[in-house]
Amino acid sequence: MADNQSTPRQPSRREPVLTPGGVADQLSRLELPAPSNLNLEIPNRSNLPPAPDSAISTTSIRSNDTGDISGPEPEYITQARNKNRSESVSEQLSAQLSKMNFPQPEHIFGPNEGGSAAAKERNAQNQGVSDADWARVQLDDEVPEAVKEPVRMTHSRNVSRVDAATPSHASLQPSPIPEGTETAAVAREQKITPFDVEGGVDADGKETGIDYEKVVRRFGATMISPDLLERFEKLTGHRPHPLLRRGTFFSHRDFNLILDRYEKGQPFYLYTGRGPSSDSMHMGHLIPFMFTAWLQRVFNVPLVVQITDDEKYLLERDAKKQAALQKKIKAKKPLNLLDHYHKMGQDNIKDIIACGVLPEKTFIFSNLSYVGGPFYRNVVLMGKTLTVNNVKGVFGFSDSDNAGMFHFAAIQATPSFSNSFPQIFGERDDIPCLIPCAIDQDPYFLVTRDSADKLGYKKPCLLHSKFLPALQGANTKMSASNENSAIFMTDDAKKIAKKIKSHAFSGGGATQEEHQRLGGNPDIDVAYQYLSFFEDDDEKMKSLSDGYRAGTLSTSQMKEACIAKITAVVEEFQKNRAAVTDEILHAYQDPTRKIDPRPVAKTQE
Amino acid sequence: MADNQSTPRQPSRREPVLTPGGVADQLSRLELPAPSNLNLEIPNRSNLPPAPDSAISTTSIRSNDTGDISGPEPEYITQARNKNRSESVSEQLSAQLSKMNFPQPEHIFGPNEGGSAAAKERNAQNQGVSDADWARVQLDDEVPEAVKEPVRMTHSRNVSRVDAATPSHASLQPSPIPEGTETAAVAREQKITPFDVEGGVDADGKETGIDYEKVVRRFGATMISPDLLERFEKLTGHRPHPLLRRGTFFSHRDFNLILDRYEKGQPFYLYTGRGPSSDSMHMGHLIPFMFTAWLQRVFNVPLVVQITDDEKYLLERDAKKQAALQKKIKAKKPLNLLDHYHKMGQDNIKDIIACGVLPEKTFIFSNLSYVGGPFYRNVVLMGKTLTVNNVKGVFGFSDSDNAGMFHFAAIQATPSFSNSFPQIFGERDDIPCLIPCAIDQDPYFLVTRDSADKLGYKKPCLLHSKFLPALQGANTKMSASNENSAIFMTDDAKKIAKKIKSHAFSGGGATQEEHQRLGGNPDIDVAYQYLSFFEDDDEKMKSLSDGYRAGTLSTSQMKEACIAKITAVVEEFQKNRAAVTDEILHAYQDPTRKIDPRPVAKTQE
Repeated sequence: MADNQSTPRQPSRREPVLTPGGVADQLSRLELPAPSNLNLEIPNRSNLPPAPDSAISTTSIRSNDTGDISGPEPEYITQARNKNRSESVSEQLSAQLSKMNFPQPEHIFGPNEGGSAAAKERNAQNQGVSDADWARVQLDDEVPEAVKEPVRMTHSRNVSRVDAATPSHASLQPSPIPEGTETAAVAREQKITPFDVEGGVDADGKETGIDYEKVVRRFGATMISPDLLERFEKLTGHRPHPLLRRGTFFSHRDFNLILDRYEKGQPFYLYTGRGPSSDSMHMGHLIPFMFTAWLQRVFNVPLVVQITDDEKYLLERDAKKQAALQKKIKAKKPLNLLDHYHKMGQDNIKDIIACGVLPEKTFIFSNLSYVGGPFYRNVVLMGKTLTVNNVKGVFGFSDSDNAGMFHFAAIQATPSFSNSFPQIFGERDDIPCLIPCAIDQDPYFLVTRDSADKLGYKKPCLLHSKFLPALQGANTKMSASNENSAIFMTDDAKKIAKKIKSHAFSGGGATQEEHQRLGGNPDIDVAYQYLSFFEDDDEKMKSLSDGYRAGTLSTSQMKEACIAKITAVVEEFQKNRAAVTDEILHAYQDPTRKIDPRPVAKTQE
Repeated sequence: MADNQSTPRQPSRREPVLTPGGVADQLSRLELPAPSNLNLEIPNRSNLPPAPDSAISTTSIRSNDTGDISGPEPEYITQARNKNRSESVSEQLSAQLSKMNFPQPEHIFGPNEGGSAAAKERNAQNQGVSDADWARVQLDDEVPEAVKEPVRMTHSRNVSRVDAATPSHASLQPSPIPEGTETAAVAREQKITPFDVEGGVDADGKETGIDYEKVVRRFGATMISPDLLERFEKLTGHRPHPLLRRGTFFSHRDFNLILDRYEKGQPFYLYTGRGPSSDSMHMGHLIPFMFTAWLQRVFNVPLVVQITDDEKYLLERDAKKQAALQKKIKAKKPLNLLDHYHKMGQDNIKDIIACGVLPEKTFIFSNLSYVGGPFYRNVVLMGKTLTVNNVKGVFGFSDSDNAGMFHFAAIQATPSFSNSFPQIFGERDDIPCLIPCAIDQDPYFLVTRDSADKLGYKKPCLLHSKFLPALQGANTKMSASNENSAIFMTDDAKKIAKKIKSHAFSGGGATQEEHQRLGGNPDIDVAYQYLSFFEDDDEKMKSLSDGYRAGTLSTSQMKEACIAKITAVVEEFQKNRAAVTDEILHAYQDPTRKIDPRPVAKTQE
């Protein structure tokens, strides 16, 4: 089919036109470094012989459990397909997408600039799962404290936490944690929930920040060990992403099982999501997607991205705030407000595409558009596994909250089950997913993991990240409504420089003299932190850190290094973002576009 | 388009083939009385000049608010449409359906055998809404007691009530009604909820049956008055259906407003639904659909039918019963059980089609297949209007019930809003619906009516029916699991005769001698009741009733009259049912098939 389309890797550079060919052409115009510059040697892309009709070579499959989804096509797909007697636009586009070299923004993701040769060598040894890792998996199946010890929460998801509504019924909250009484300053435990993140306060009323090890123990998750990262590197031939090896992604559930599957050539996929926010996305919003896109390219697996435009409407408990928004956007009815959230989500999807997710392996969907059919089937199944008691316990909702909120956990759980996406997995329900998310989203997937057993489905695996600091430091939150709390992806070079110079919390000495005498602290220095998310070169980071502690590197020098990196990342993003047309936007969201989930060989050495 | 298809009213009689033409041909083979025999003079069918491309003549529109849905096509439809570059199967089928004379089983619906001339005369006077009717509308807007005074319920919907799970947490139930204490026999109030129907018990422990007037007062609905029926007859030119004029449909909400719209030529539509049950449907299941199909033909408006296969899974609270079913059907996972309910629903849809709903104006949908897009948008909007407190109050659920149940009210509410069906109404949300349902379903639509205001949508209007008696009489329930409690639509003539002779509760004397001496009571005689649902001839009914009371008509004569009518109804149904192929089944469920909602003139005299 579509033999007369542009050749696989050399799309012609015509002016964009609104045809399948035009869309494909536009996709190819994202001006990213040529494939030859890629340091991330993604095996199937650089090492496999090119397959004329598909990037997938069947000769590369290694095990029996390969993700072959042959057999009868599911009814849902057949029905959709039968509607199109002629070859559909989406099929033509799909064929082209699968042949293309689309955005590979490795600069954003931190190219694997060192260690790749060593990694390849270790990879050849092909080691199995360690006993320690295996034991951890068993522990994960226990019911964690979080389920038993609910706390009151407000909601957000990959959205800066101050955006979330403030809980108004604190007295209703069944709280096992000693809370502040009327005494002015007393010790208070930290709170980490999908809706609320608060560091602890000590007996003197001083903020103690977030103790992540404690969170992990409480949730019953597992810290990411050096062994696990070493295994990752051996198997994939890639150094862990800076966010992984420098501990922003610091905890997991069953990531070792995902590595087992990768090792054996068994299929799995990635799932992440986003509650739509205002059109200005800041860096904190996008770093998780940059990381996820990097993971996708390393593993070369399907990715599904859920845009929870429904949640945004349901979970806003601040009725006044929502009414004000409704007035501001001149929404006559609640329906118009819902449409507004939907449109915000569409803008956000363009940003997510610009993060470089693989076009031929990625499906992005808005709940308001996609919920239905096989997806809705799983929502119903999931909904029945959750009692109102469960939901109250895990999320801290009360009887005055709306029924949609209680049900929403089923909606966020459902992308964890592979048969929710028949265009990718057919009717197979035995393909697990890996979910990179901030630690506060864990409770959703904790209930999902419990329910997966009841439904006879695979449990989702998780990678947890810490919270990214605001420019003002870890005790402030990045907020879309506070211009100076974050770098926005629309900021220009001048603004980035100004924000970092004026607002980035410094770990340096109070004066230049003091800095030179006593040195600075890079661990609390925001410029150093931001740099660490993107700078792949460990030597460079060590030299900056050492110099800072010694007082030989000044705060302004540290900031200059940060500005240079962040500006490069943002500018690259902006270039990609500008190239994402509405046609590209729709192509990613086309539910009839087939995606091949079959694993390919990791290396051919 | 499709100019070369079979001519409107004379489809050719070829052997069925699986093409659009073949499907249309099959539709036409349902051997029903020819149009000339129709006593139900549905105005636009018999009196309007035939329009070559559509049954809708624009010259027939009477008012400004006509239901014209011209203007930009909604995005949802455009997207679906754009997928089909060639003319789609569904469009061809739709064009054909709109030109066809499909099942017109007027025998089932009770043809309007008398009074039609008088009705026409009155119709010419074209009277407006009475002040009394108008005042009732105002009252309907008050919050009814049912919302304030919740009772505990289990669930069913147009399904015999003993099918529903028995509530297991009676103690949790917030009941404002004085209930039985530990004393053996005391007075007990009746209970009518979507999940439970129980007659009252008097101080002596004797069952008092259901006091429908009391239910109506409690729910804040309005009894159907003779004036209202007279107005119906004047406006439509049709005598009210036997179920309406003999009081099975006995109560309403805003039915007068629907008549107002009908009078002014303003659009509205019908909505009904069904929770799927085992493949054996009995007469009690189908009478509501026969009535709805009759209403549709009188009003000539769109009808949407919701099959709540999702509800069937979510609302079954008897875990043991569901586990037993899962085992019986060899369902490995909950998903297989859900599929089982879906398949039951598909069988039920064939039965509903055989009741004679208008093919070109009817959309039937399974929630598991249709929920999504614009429909899901309204589910989300509706979900947010219902607090957990509301749902507990109205439906009597508790914290140990699942979150899906709480959310389900939003799913059953959503077909009340016209923009849930873009293929019919485009983006218009100002077209109200009329819902014929049993009185126990009223609470769903009561919350819907409250929420409609909040959402800026039209309130649904309702027609309430009483419960149909089992063969054993009003104190027993028809049950699909009790073969002898009901006439099944698959019963043959012999079985029908045997069931009525052996099991139909008789209002006659204990002995023949006593019957002749004291006479019988037709009001509790099941044979007479069943006959009254279908026999249009009031003279005949009066003569049977008079003879019975006088003792001149014997019980066996009454039963013979009933057997003759019921057998004719069932046999006609069976003939229609046999003609419903899978292609017809799918055509009714095709969400891309356009349905024209524009009203047509009622008469052209």
